[in-house]
Amino acid sequence: MAHPVSPLAPKSLPELPEIAGVRFATAEAGIKYRSRTDVLLVAMDEGTVVAGVLTRSKCPSAAVDWCRQNLPGGTARALLVNSGNANAFTGQRGKAAVGLSAEIVSRALGIAPAEIFLASTGVIGEPLAAEKFAGVTEAMAGRLAAGPWMDAARAIMTTDTFAKVATATVEFDGVPVSISGIAKGSGMIAPDMATMLSFVFTDAPIAAGVLQALLQPAIDTSFNAVTVDSDTSTSDTCLVFATGKAPIAPIGSVDDPRAAVFAEALRDVLHELAIHVVRDGEGATKMVTVSVEGAESDRSAFRIAQSIANSPLVKTAIAGEDANWGRIVMAVGKAGEPADRDRLEISFGDIRVATRGERDPAYDEAATSAYMKNEEIEIRVGIGLGSGSATVYTCDLTHGYITINGDYRS
Amino acid sequence: MAHPVSPLAPKSLPELPEIAGVRFATAEAGIKYRSRTDVLLVAMDEGTVVAGVLTRSKCPSAAVDWCRQNLPGGTARALLVNSGNANAFTGQRGKAAVGLSAEIVSRALGIAPAEIFLASTGVIGEPLAAEKFAGVTEAMAGRLAAGPWMDAARAIMTTDTFAKVATATVEFDGVPVSISGIAKGSGMIAPDMATMLSFVFTDAPIAAGVLQALLQPAIDTSFNAVTVDSDTSTSDTCLVFATGKAPIAPIGSVDDPRAAVFAEALRDVLHELAIHVVRDGEGATKMVTVSVEGAESDRSAFRIAQSIANSPLVKTAIAGEDANWGRIVMAVGKAGEPADRDRLEISFGDIRVATRGERDPAYDEAATSAYMKNEEIEIRVGIGLGSGSATVYTCDLTHGYITINGDYRS
Repeated sequence: MAHPVSPLAPKSLPELPEIAGVRFATAEAGIKYRSRTDVLLVAMDEGTVVAGVLTRSKCPSAAVDWCRQNLPGGTARALLVNSGNANAFTGQRGKAAVGLSAEIVSRALGIAPAEIFLASTGVIGEPLAAEKFAGVTEAMAGRLAAGPWMDAARAIMTTDTFAKVATATVEFDGVPVSISGIAKGSGMIAPDMATMLSFVFTDAPIAAGVLQALLQPAIDTSFNAVTVDSDTSTSDTCLVFATGKAPIAPIGSVDDPRAAVFAEALRDVLHELAIHVVRDGEGATKMVTVSVEGAESDRSAFRIAQSIANSPLVKTAIAGEDANWGRIVMAVGKAGEPADRDRLEISFGDIRVATRGERDPAYDEAATSAYMKNEEIEIRVGIGLGSGSATVYTCDLTHGYITINGDYRS
Repeated sequence: MAHPVSPLAPKSLPELPEIAGVRFATAEAGIKYRSRTDVLLVAMDEGTVVAGVLTRSKCPSAAVDWCRQNLPGGTARALLVNSGNANAFTGQRGKAAVGLSAEIVSRALGIAPAEIFLASTGVIGEPLAAEKFAGVTEAMAGRLAAGPWMDAARAIMTTDTFAKVATATVEFDGVPVSISGIAKGSGMIAPDMATMLSFVFTDAPIAAGVLQALLQPAIDTSFNAVTVDSDTSTSDTCLVFATGKAPIAPIGSVDDPRAAVFAEALRDVLHELAIHVVRDGEGATKMVTVSVEGAESDRSAFRIAQSIANSPLVKTAIAGEDANWGRIVMAVGKAGEPADRDRLEISFGDIRVATRGERDPAYDEAATSAYMKNEEIEIRVGIGLGSGSATVYTCDLTHGYITINGDYRS
């Protein structure tokens, strides 16, 4: 938290509206940090349904295990999140810690453990002192409120340099339905079917199964399309809670035309949060969009885009404002996906630098160098084989990343 | 070349013996660098056979294409290597440049282009001015000599901070047979079925097919087991030339008992060169050995070891001398290979830090921190599922890497 705010932080953030049926509070439990909030308790009214996507890491945190166990139930009444300790790789003690956490929340709110969701983020391998929640949870339960959401977003930060929020509103039959989300994440960001931590709340009346069906594709082009450092977390968790309080007929099927409208708004919120995570990438000074088209399939395009976005050589070149497109060629080549060197086309923004397997005859070093000084860099790659396309978002790799990660744990 | 010599550079290097049938010379062609040699011409006597392994990049350099075309012939008379320009992603001009290079060598030495091998290393995407070879190749042909090998190793360096050589001698029927090699590489190192650039010479009389059969497995545990930055080069090339001058009966079959002895010595030379490459990893301050055992298969163990060795978070922690084994857990988890969190065992050297999915009860932070100050760090991971094992070699990720790669091309 000692690090300065990312230069890529958004200039302004929206004020999130209240979501009917959702109240929360934060507290200082002293898990690791001093003089800042590190616990978030969210209480939701009866009837709230939940959908979620969790990390595919083979070493998931105890909280992830807990959520995976409760998700099939489809209903939720509470969410407890702490920062400062990931409760990952903590063995039986980790399992006991999630049990104790749920018990504390269960007692404070009078709800069943099966409807309580948990998430933890911070250092891996240290036992989580869940007993510290006991003192503060009762107090939080006594002062639950419908805002301000910024407080919730702040309590879940670790190396984040700014709080991440996003919101969208859709109207059905003249009734506004809100979707608001918070997220945290800055390093260990290469989500695999989920994100670091993100929580979304809506007052839409929607069946849990429908919500789950809409969530996965929205994740694929938002959180799963960002990478900071290619390192996938043990704790990636995205949960969406729908209280059903909006006075409209329930959305009970994915074929309901309103489902598509809702899905698009949900995707917008997740996408905005995912971009916030990249903009807060550890040490980041440039926001980078990698768009690949003309691949054999969307999946192939995605893998090529990932290979470019994860390449330390591409990322250090961007940090150095060097239009080193040779390294992009390298990253395409190593992706292992179908590609024909002699059809490749590479552009920075609108400046084409390479075509048909060699430097563009019209290549202009001065214009390209000027472009690289921008804060937002777009890398566009044409594979020339098919119609598969994908976009991945990342940041540059700078001395800041080394500094932050050379001394995070100690 | 402006960077200081790696602190991990070997304290001494062997003097390589002459290889009967091999002579070489170096020159300053002025491809990119000033006031240093940048071309190596090696001439080999008639009867020399060749085996090779080349990059699997989908965007290989023109020189790699050329070698791939000539390798099936199995015989070699010359090798021309330049540094400063990779002749990769240079399209038709790149193809013309290798044609011209071969023609210049063919004329100077009076040999057929099909027996000439080429390699280039340096910047990607810039056309290679092969006509610059014309002036120097004739001169090099006039002063070919059997040593010193250090000159050959120096001429092929790019961001390398020390020249890389290794040698081994085996005796068959009292007759010594030599195997000597040179290599270059420091960044863009994650060889995939080959290495950056390595050339090995032996006087062994051995059939080309046998040499090729022995080469691949030796590569798998040497060059293919190192990574500096996870970025696979467009130019990875390892060629082994055997002149057959040693006065022993030819090795004509892999079943010849001498083949196994020769293969082991070849593997030793390749392994030593591969370790040199890691020790010269861009910005490296620590040499790291990642050993994984108990995986479901050797392949699975290798992928897990790679995931650890390529993780920027693991590598920055090592640079910061932080025994952050939680990040090793993360890297095991993201590898996508079978793993059971609750059977994991992790050690730094002989210090076990985690067992059965949580911190070792006997964990001693002071002792572990003291170990992390060593120049050579060993990470040992037990998966506890089977008998697959693998070892991958890497270095730490430091400010030096960012500095070197933020301004390499410009």
